[in-house]
Amino acid sequence: MAAKRTKRDFPVHEIRRFLEPGPVVLVSSAWRGQTNIMTMGWHTVLEFSPSLVGCLISSGNHSHEMIRRSRACVINVPTVDLAAKVVGIGNCSGATVDKFDKFKLTAMAADAVRAPLIAECHANLECRLVDGGLRKQYDFFIFEVVKAHALAAPKYPKTIHYRGDGMFMVAGRSLNLRRGFRPEML
Amino acid sequence: MAAKRTKRDFPVHEIRRFLEPGPVVLVSSAWRGQTNIMTMGWHTVLEFSPSLVGCLISSGNHSHEMIRRSRACVINVPTVDLAAKVVGIGNCSGATVDKFDKFKLTAMAADAVRAPLIAECHANLECRLVDGGLRKQYDFFIFEVVKAHALAAPKYPKTIHYRGDGMFMVAGRSLNLRRGFRPEML
Repeated sequence: MAAKRTKRDFPVHEIRRFLEPGPVVLVSSAWRGQTNIMTMGWHTVLEFSPSLVGCLISSGNHSHEMIRRSRACVINVPTVDLAAKVVGIGNCSGATVDKFDKFKLTAMAADAVRAPLIAECHANLECRLVDGGLRKQYDFFIFEVVKAHALAAPKYPKTIHYRGDGMFMVAGRSLNLRRGFRPEML
Repeated sequence: MAAKRTKRDFPVHEIRRFLEPGPVVLVSSAWRGQTNIMTMGWHTVLEFSPSLVGCLISSGNHSHEMIRRSRACVINVPTVDLAAKVVGIGNCSGATVDKFDKFKLTAMAADAVRAPLIAECHANLECRLVDGGLRKQYDFFIFEVVKAHALAAPKYPKTIHYRGDGMFMVAGRSLNLRRGFRPEML
């Protein structure tokens, strides 16, 4: 089981590998003794180094205030085996539910932030809020990934990608087009 | 051939269907009689209505200045049959290459903006720059999708998703998890 396998430290400036393909992620947070998890599909890499990620976290989400106050979160990358939990997490509120408990997920201590890692996910990106200037207008948070962990295998995890209307796309085959790149563009 | 098929108007508030799964897109632009295309992987939906999209367009890209000045672009969603062209477009510069000509792509007039559509792509999202406030600091542009066009079929196009290092993921199977959603969350 993924939860039992050991993760390796992963270089923070290479986390595009996990986020750029566009998977739905689980964002975990903690504030004043409470933890929470939310499902998030609206995110983008913004910079390699520092490793910046922009995330839309609606003020309607219980996590919004927890992340605003704690200035931290963990972006966890789930695979298709967790799909039903990902949907369940996105369809209830941390205001009334302890999601780690309800969805039988394992909270692990992070190295650099106070938010918990979700052990069952393929990768865990520990994030610090570095720019909240667009939060009020757009609910947009800019985080720096300060520490990353990932399973060594599979190299290309079967992530899930949301299309809206309850429909997901499961990550398909890999396509190596390296020979079409200039070396400095890789 | 896709280029010859007729596209339908697509509701702008539903364009998450195309962008949220995270495909690499082609961004087309025009300024002072010149057109250009760039390959872009760093983007996120920001809002349903108005239909907002945030995009990272590095100042190192020839398109950056064209889009800043014209305040418009088209986000075109290519499928796997165009993968080699997507890579080629990302590995040369509009400063020295006419990309529509070099890659034998068909520029079509947009309805609402001056930037050209790429006929061969599955969907075309006509965008107006609505907030350039994060451009200087992050190369981040916030666009409103003001008009959208898409092929009626296939419903779930085989988009390509970049992992870095020359490796792509091709959109895989669909997973219907609608029954796990509360109706208002669909």
